[in-house]
Formats: sequence, structure tokens, C-alpha cells
Amino acid sequence: MKRRPFLKGAAAAGAAGSVPLAPAIADAARELTMVTTWPEHSPGLGSSADRLASRITEGSGGRLSVKVLAAGKLVSPMKTFETVSEGNADMYHAFEYYWQDRAKAFAFFASVPFGLTAAEMSSWVMFGGGQELWDETAAAFNLKPFLAGNTGMQMAGWFKRKVGRTGDLRGLKMRIAGLGGEVARNLGAQPVHVPVGQIYSALEAGEIDAAEWLAPWNDMALKLYKVAKYYYYPGFHEPGTTLGAAVNLKVWESLSSADRALIEAAMAAENDAVLAEFNARNAAALEVLVKDHGVRLERFPNAVINAMGKAAGEVVAEVGASDAQTKKVYESFLAFRKRGLGWSRIAEQAFSEARLLPFKYG
Amino acid sequence: MKRRPFLKGAAAAGAAGSVPLAPAIADAARELTMVTTWPEHSPGLGSSADRLASRITEGSGGRLSVKVLAAGKLVSPMKTFETVSEGNADMYHAFEYYWQDRAKAFAFFASVPFGLTAAEMSSWVMFGGGQELWDETAAAFNLKPFLAGNTGMQMAGWFKRKVGRTGDLRGLKMRIAGLGGEVARNLGAQPVHVPVGQIYSALEAGEIDAAEWLAPWNDMALKLYKVAKYYYYPGFHEPGTTLGAAVNLKVWESLSSADRALIEAAMAAENDAVLAEFNARNAAALEVLVKDHGVRLERFPNAVINAMGKAAGEVVAEVGASDAQTKKVYESFLAFRKRGLGWSRIAEQAFSEARLLPFKYG
Repeated sequence: MKRRPFLKGAAAAGAAGSVPLAPAIADAARELTMVTTWPEHSPGLGSSADRLASRITEGSGGRLSVKVLAAGKLVSPMKTFETVSEGNADMYHAFEYYWQDRAKAFAFFASVPFGLTAAEMSSWVMFGGGQELWDETAAAFNLKPFLAGNTGMQMAGWFKRKVGRTGDLRGLKMRIAGLGGEVARNLGAQPVHVPVGQIYSALEAGEIDAAEWLAPWNDMALKLYKVAKYYYYPGFHEPGTTLGAAVNLKVWESLSSADRALIEAAMAAENDAVLAEFNARNAAALEVLVKDHGVRLERFPNAVINAMGKAAGEVVAEVGASDAQTKKVYESFLAFRKRGLGWSRIAEQAFSEARLLPFKYG
Repeated sequence: MKRRPFLKGAAAAGAAGSVPLAPAIADAARELTMVTTWPEHSPGLGSSADRLASRITEGSGGRLSVKVLAAGKLVSPMKTFETVSEGNADMYHAFEYYWQDRAKAFAFFASVPFGLTAAEMSSWVMFGGGQELWDETAAAFNLKPFLAGNTGMQMAGWFKRKVGRTGDLRGLKMRIAGLGGEVARNLGAQPVHVPVGQIYSALEAGEIDAAEWLAPWNDMALKLYKVAKYYYYPGFHEPGTTLGAAVNLKVWESLSSADRALIEAAMAAENDAVLAEFNARNAAALEVLVKDHGVRLERFPNAVINAMGKAAGEVVAEVGASDAQTKKVYESFLAFRKRGLGWSRIAEQAFSEARLLPFKYG
């Protein structure tokens, strides 16, 4: 992290206020280390961690300096949780479902199959009791968690053959992570673990028949359109995945109210900006995929979606029954989902449908 | 604005840093006055202005103190624009379409009929070139504008009689503001100006046949369900209205980079939080309206929606042709809308439809 920005900031603050601040104040910046699960500056994810760090560092005017350590710099991605929990780093930036084997409840604070959209997730966490339950879940690990971004809707992935009926999923070898993989397994598919960097070659070599990664922007970067022709939607498995950031709880409690207010604002700002960026870049990439690369967009038939929905309901209910804390979270999530769906249906969904009627506009 | 919070903040910051800050620093806080177009603490709107001020004041740790002046406290709502433009207050908090008679282009930075959803608006402004065009538009008035919240989808309003076909709108006296009113007029309705506080009595007395205000949360507070039976959707006229805040440009340029970074984060945080709050409270209010007050939810028939869409396209195109700057904004908006619609259709819309299939979930 460069020292320059907040030296400058502190000097300017000194000039503006009536009590001049000595440049020495910049040296008083408390450094917070943020470990992430992302490759350095990776689009949408690592880049958001960088931007979050800048917002806190710059906005503090010399009080704080957040240093980002990408995956592998301090610890491997899957150890970021313990590293922060144990106080060997101050905060992490990740997807919360990575920590499902620490506590099943974490799955609900990332995304679950047929769960909440990005907007609904923010509503539930901020104004539907979700944050309190998340705080409880994370406090058991000495962590204070935050919404820090959302990928928005993902795509169901790249398929070499069309899926005409549910039976076509039987025996299908698919790279699909997490609970989405369990849904696929319930329908007879074989979820396979393939690291992101090897998805292309696994599809090309025919080792797998299908693979999901993210959505048009990130999928196009992997050139998956070259090795599988059909691009399926809707992304039933991750309808809006939250980027979660957590601060070591003792560190959090040691911060001034000003530092906490600033960090809270920076987190919420990223929660907003990440979704805006994914949607803008996905929309642009989708056009290129279809127009320049001849990608075939395919919607699963209703019978397949219905079978996926049923399987998703079972998989999520099973996770929700894991333990007392997860049950509380599941029940809150489920009640909010039902209520949110009632509103979404007549609000954004009805408007989106209306907008597709054949009237001329522009 | 109370002095206490940042005295406390500064003291705590002093304790945590290695250079102790004298309590005198708190007195150095630069006060910024924010005038709003909302009644004091009004739900979702005034309350967001209050929260924005707190985020900036608290996060600054004593550098800044934002004082909120509700509608009428310093100037009447419709004079907040000039007051800030001329430097008699530092910032305003409003809907940008209030300033359409200063520059038509402002309409596009609030909401236009059949335009962008909340998520699309954020995408366009943050990552689709919208902010640059907004900056240009506002700079001509010595203002620096920001996204500062979004109401999300609104409802088309309360109707005393059902709307079965487009002809039913002919002669209908409806309280509907702005460009939505022009759309209604194009379809033969008679848009009527009725202040918010008088909507109930005007409907009750039969002076108007229909009225739109906001969405379930705010509409329920006005008890409109008692005087009109049918609650229509989709809210074609305002599919996601941005709360805009603007800082006097000279004040903005005089702020330190730290203060600017903090203000930018606070604005984006509110852009996130306001939408989350409206969606959560609208979902809850909708349940009460339907279950406890027997409200009849009605969707306009496709033929009516199609006629509204066509009229909206004409109204918005006419606004877009007003002058050179508005034309630039309109063309950018239109291109983004087209692209965004391609993505929304296969992303959130397809998922929302999938979620309504009859599978059991929970």
C-alpha cells in the first residue's frame, strides 16, 4: 500500500480545518491487513477488495491503512478464515459459503440454490434480521461480518449438448461447485471438482460435459464459448452471490466509532458498486458472446427447472436442519424469501415482463 | 446536529493512534449544510438524508459535520436547487426530476417511464458512462451530483374502478406526477396535481378517480386502501427512482481527497441501503395490505401496458430531443437500456419466473 495518498489527504485536511495537523499524523495510520481468497486484482472480486481497501484508507484521512494480500500471499485461500479468526490478519474478503464446513449457516450469507436475488439478499441482511443472525454465527469464530458486494445472477453454465428433459442430466459430468453441485447430483449428474484455470482444458478434452463458472464477463475471459456451444440460464444455483468481508472481532471492538462508521460505509458502498459492475460488464459481454462468438443462449425447459427447484428445496432444507444456529438462519431466510417473492413478483418481475411487450421505445 | 458523537469519535481515535489528538480537533469540524425536499425524518427519504449525514459526520472522526435541514427549514423544497447552486447551502438531497425545468436532462437521473430498474440505473451511472454525463449536466449549475438511494419499483397506483382496456383511461382524473402524467395524458387521462397530504381526501371526495404515490410501505401510511379498492402494477411510470444528492461544486473542489472519498463512500452506501429498506418494508406492507385490508392487486392487461409503453417511448423521446446535452444523455440511457435489458431478461427475470414454478421449496 502506498503511503502517498493519505499523506496528501492529511495535509489537505490540515489545510482545511482550523487546527493544523502535523504531517506526522500520517505515520500514525493503523495498518489493517486484509487477506482475500482471490488472485491479485482479479476482475470483480480482487478488484473490489482493492477498492474497499482504498475507500477505507483514503476516507480515513490518515487514521487507517488497509493492506490487501491476495490469495497465497500470506496464506492459501482456504486458510484466510482461520487466519483472521485467530488474529493473524485483521480482515478477510471471500464468499461465505467457503466456510460451510466451519458452520453450515454461512452458506445462507453467500447464496443458496433458488434462494435470494442480490437485492433481496441486501434487504434480508440489512432490514430483515439477517445481519443479527450473521453476527451471531460469525461471533462464534471471533469475526464481525459484512456484505461487501454481490455478483448478481450467475449463469447455469456451458453445456456441450442440449438439455431437453431432466433425464438428460443423468450421468452428465459437470463442473459445478457447492450446493448447486448437490442439486445436480440429486438429478443424476456427477459434479466434478475442476479448478477455475483448468475448466477450459477439461471441457476441451471431454473430461467434463458441462461447467459453470460465473456469468458472461468472467466466463468470456476463460474463452469457454470455444469449447461448449450452449450457454444455459437461469443460474438456479447462485442467484446473487454475496462477497463477504469479516473483521477480527477483537480488532473491530478496538476501533473507534469513527473508524467503524467509515468501514461500514465502505462495505455498503462496495456492496452497491460490485453488483453495478457485474451487471454492466455482463450485459456488455453477453452481446459480444452472442454477436461475435455465436453463443447459443438456452433456457432450461420448465420441467427441468421444476425438478431443479424441487431438488434445491430438499438440499437447502437439509443444510438448514444441520444444527440449531443454522436452523434459525434457514427459517429467517425462508420467511424473508417468501415475503420478498410476493413483492418481487408484482414489482421488478412484472415490470421486466411488461418491458418485453412489442411496443416501440426509442 | 449533536456535537457529542464526534467529540467521542475524535477522543477514541486519539486513544488508538500513536499521536494523541487534542479534543480541540472536534471544534475544527467543517460544517456542511444539507437542504432536502423531504419533510423531517420522512420514511425512506428524509430518514436516508439523516443517515447520510450521520455516515459522513461519524466516519470523518471530527473533520466534517453535516447538518440536515428538512423541507422548509431554510428554503422551500423547490428552492433547494438554487440554494446549493448559489452556495447558500452546501448540498441538497432530492429527486433529480424536480429540476427538469432547469435542464431536461435531469429527468434521466431520477426515473423515466419504462426506463431502468434500480440495479440498471446504478450500473449505467457507475459503469456505463452515466456519471460523466450527469457531472456535465450538473456542473453547468455549479453542482457535483451523486446517486444517494433508490426507491426501487413503485406501484402504478390506487384506482376506484378496474382498468379493463386502454379506453378505460379516457377521462380518468388521476393524481400522477411528472412524465408518468404525460404518458397518462397521451392515453386520454387527465393528470391532476394533488399534494401528498391531500391524496386521501381527494380520492374520498371523488375529486379524482385514481392516484399514485409510491409503493406499499408509504402508500399504506396514507391509508389509501380505504378510499380506492384496486392497487395496480407494474409501476410503469417510475421503475426505480434515484434519490440524488448534489454538493456545491466549489465546496466539493475545496474538500480534501479524504473528505471526498468519505462522501463518495457514504453516498454509495445509501444508494445500497435505501433500496434494501424500501424492498424490505414494501414486501412487509404488501402482505398487510392484502391480508388485513383486503386490497385487490391488479395487473394492467397487456394491451393497456403496450399502449402505455408506446406512449412512454414517445414522451421520453420528446424530452430526449429537448437540447444537445439532453440528447447525449438520452442516447446513452437508451443504449444502456437496450443492452441491460438483454442481460436482465436471461438473468433476474428468467430466475424470477423460474422461482414461480410449482415446485415445493421449504
